[in-house]
Amino acid sequence: MKRALALLAGLLLATLSEAQNPDSVFLRRLADEILVNSGAYENLRQLTKSVGGRLAGSPAMARAERWGQGALEAAGAERVWLQECLVPHWVRGGKDRFEIRLSGAKGRKTRTLQALALGNSPGSKGPLTAPVLVVRDFAELDAKKDSVKGKIVFFNYKFNPRFVHTFEAYSDAGIYRGQGPVRAAKYGAVGVAIRSLSGGTDNFPHTGTTASGDTIRTVPSVALGLRDADLLDSLLRGGQPVVATLQTFGRFLPDTIGHNVIGELRGTEAPDEIITIGGHLDSWDPAEGAHDDGAGIVHTIEVLRAFRALGYRPKHSIRFVLFANEENGLRGGRKYAEEAKAKGERHIFALESDEGGFTPRGFGLTASDEQFARFRSWAPLLAPYGASELRRGGGGSDIGPLGRQGTPTCGFIPDSQRYFDVHHASNDVFENVNKRELELGAVTIAALIYLVDKYGL
Amino acid sequence: MKRALALLAGLLLATLSEAQNPDSVFLRRLADEILVNSGAYENLRQLTKSVGGRLAGSPAMARAERWGQGALEAAGAERVWLQECLVPHWVRGGKDRFEIRLSGAKGRKTRTLQALALGNSPGSKGPLTAPVLVVRDFAELDAKKDSVKGKIVFFNYKFNPRFVHTFEAYSDAGIYRGQGPVRAAKYGAVGVAIRSLSGGTDNFPHTGTTASGDTIRTVPSVALGLRDADLLDSLLRGGQPVVATLQTFGRFLPDTIGHNVIGELRGTEAPDEIITIGGHLDSWDPAEGAHDDGAGIVHTIEVLRAFRALGYRPKHSIRFVLFANEENGLRGGRKYAEEAKAKGERHIFALESDEGGFTPRGFGLTASDEQFARFRSWAPLLAPYGASELRRGGGGSDIGPLGRQGTPTCGFIPDSQRYFDVHHASNDVFENVNKRELELGAVTIAALIYLVDKYGL
Repeated sequence: MKRALALLAGLLLATLSEAQNPDSVFLRRLADEILVNSGAYENLRQLTKSVGGRLAGSPAMARAERWGQGALEAAGAERVWLQECLVPHWVRGGKDRFEIRLSGAKGRKTRTLQALALGNSPGSKGPLTAPVLVVRDFAELDAKKDSVKGKIVFFNYKFNPRFVHTFEAYSDAGIYRGQGPVRAAKYGAVGVAIRSLSGGTDNFPHTGTTASGDTIRTVPSVALGLRDADLLDSLLRGGQPVVATLQTFGRFLPDTIGHNVIGELRGTEAPDEIITIGGHLDSWDPAEGAHDDGAGIVHTIEVLRAFRALGYRPKHSIRFVLFANEENGLRGGRKYAEEAKAKGERHIFALESDEGGFTPRGFGLTASDEQFARFRSWAPLLAPYGASELRRGGGGSDIGPLGRQGTPTCGFIPDSQRYFDVHHASNDVFENVNKRELELGAVTIAALIYLVDKYGL
Repeated sequence: MKRALALLAGLLLATLSEAQNPDSVFLRRLADEILVNSGAYENLRQLTKSVGGRLAGSPAMARAERWGQGALEAAGAERVWLQECLVPHWVRGGKDRFEIRLSGAKGRKTRTLQALALGNSPGSKGPLTAPVLVVRDFAELDAKKDSVKGKIVFFNYKFNPRFVHTFEAYSDAGIYRGQGPVRAAKYGAVGVAIRSLSGGTDNFPHTGTTASGDTIRTVPSVALGLRDADLLDSLLRGGQPVVATLQTFGRFLPDTIGHNVIGELRGTEAPDEIITIGGHLDSWDPAEGAHDDGAGIVHTIEVLRAFRALGYRPKHSIRFVLFANEENGLRGGRKYAEEAKAKGERHIFALESDEGGFTPRGFGLTASDEQFARFRSWAPLLAPYGASELRRGGGGSDIGPLGRQGTPTCGFIPDSQRYFDVHHASNDVFENVNKRELELGAVTIAALIYLVDKYGL
């Protein structure tokens, strides 16, 4: 009985203190607004289904900019403008092909593997046929360097399942996509295939940038689906000679004009101090870019919509930025920071959502110790909405340049388990985004922006 | 520089202390074992694809018991046995039907809505045709009680999106499934339709038990898909009279024999003190029961497999229990507790996984203050694997009876956003379970069981 009374008193106190804390009350209103009236899911449907995949320089990216402008206006931005920047213009140019031929007792067999050229990969100028050499990593490549000449090198480095946060597995394996073709080319390889950067259970190939440039010698390169990578590995490791025909069509057209699409709410007390929230509007071409980064785009727009719906007038100016060209150039993020510097703007905080539209877990912050302590003090306010993990270190590719100019940067951290199942692959589609998970992400981001606006960082 | 040094020192300390803490080291081994070698996903594939839906009393449930016995043996149980219990035997009996007829300017139109009889609903003994009366809740039903006679009452109570933890929305709306038919029957209704208990975006109807029994007067009842519920509501609220034909075929056969399937590892130090971990083997008939509760079943088996793979010998005896008949009778859980009491067994802890195979968030515990404090002290050990939310209050339907006999009970809490998209519906299938999320659940459950075994509660 005594325990029951104590519990009851505790509950009552918690309820009262929540009811009396104006921040809790406002965050609850913000959450209700988003969970009941959110436009995020419908916006994502439009962006993925009407606009579709939208690589920098493509006609779809131009459509995405117009769509983004309209969506920011509809969500209630006081001002919307386009910030011009030059973006690279790589085109895939055709249907990538990776076919293997086996010679066995029963004659020759041909099999087409699921393959997708890496972003920025050169075209093969016709079919390129060569024996395949499998290596696990750069150490094995170096050890076998004398056998590389004239071969197609297959890097079969696996996504390490031991990493709980899957972005660590991505960093770990990512060097083979970024540097594999260049390193293999150095030893005379004529082409490269990599195991897709994914821990998934299907066979979709996952693209993404590989190193390229006027001074870089590289070779045509593709990513293979995981099941096909396993197959190829088991054939080669089993001693079966495999000859492959690789064909890619990629090429760079001249740089072209792209835009960051920016909406603004002007601050009532400190209009010259700017908070930025954003995601990137471009995506890889073979996907709808639903999680990457349609989610970040509609999160950004939803925070604006919810603030306006509640009549919230920020103290600081808030910029809602749909960045151009994150995937293969980062030109939008650089432009934004350059112009901020040139104009002497004071940017007090920047947040990016670019890890998908999954259920929120928390945020990562790159800032001073004092700022980090303030951020951590908000944990009890954010925890009811799922963002209880407030970590040191965070940001995003697009706000990186702003961070290097001294602005504290913050990254939204959703649950990471499903992200690399769809990342840069043709299954990154609207249907693989859950409405509630997407909306809860917007809730936690809106909550944090409100706290930063109210208290500073 | 000073800050960098301090950070480095902090990191070093954290690394050292983790390396030196034998619990952290063991939990890391446990996690690696499961994340690399787990059998959970393959077991789930077998249970869902080879056995399928498995309601108490059905032939599939008998197959599930045999499968479970084999799976526990394969995972390394020292002893596996069946615990017999009587289970109810309700059969759906046919293809449920809910058709509406509209009379308009262009003549009569018929439309078939997505419908599924509620579990334990009686059959309609042929097509049952009557006008439909919509109500939001019991208050509206009471207000309209004089119009209920001879009607099919449609409860269109919505899953409240304001609840962040979706199980609260389920509790909130659940009374309309449980009591709606009985309450409507009291006013003379001839049939009932309810809005499915889901906040999803599709049109799958979701079944589940409604009140029934020899002394209870009820009527044939179905759940409607959400889009069809919206359609029907908008017609009726718009003043359009709707006549529906409802047909259900449900009936009870005599109670039959079912079994809890139990595997055991015998304790090395306190073999008479028992830790129970379990889920329920039965599922609703129109689904594969992948999340509900195939996930809990394969979690349970995976903890056993991982302990054996690492050669872990528990201090206490651990029972791995695949419970019978959670969905429409709870007879398995009752039997387990009854026999424990009859034999004077000492049950020190019971954990259930029955909220799906989603990414872990934490655990809820029903226990004394002192026990709860010990549980909370493990938070830093569990957080690296995603189970950072350790809440007061928790358990599960199957271990409830054990809890009422004084055993501390604990419920695994995965993320809840997607659960009611598939719960009791035909889309609760293997393909909607993510391998990594499933495995991480097993990691956190195994970790908690290890800590309880090592330190007691």
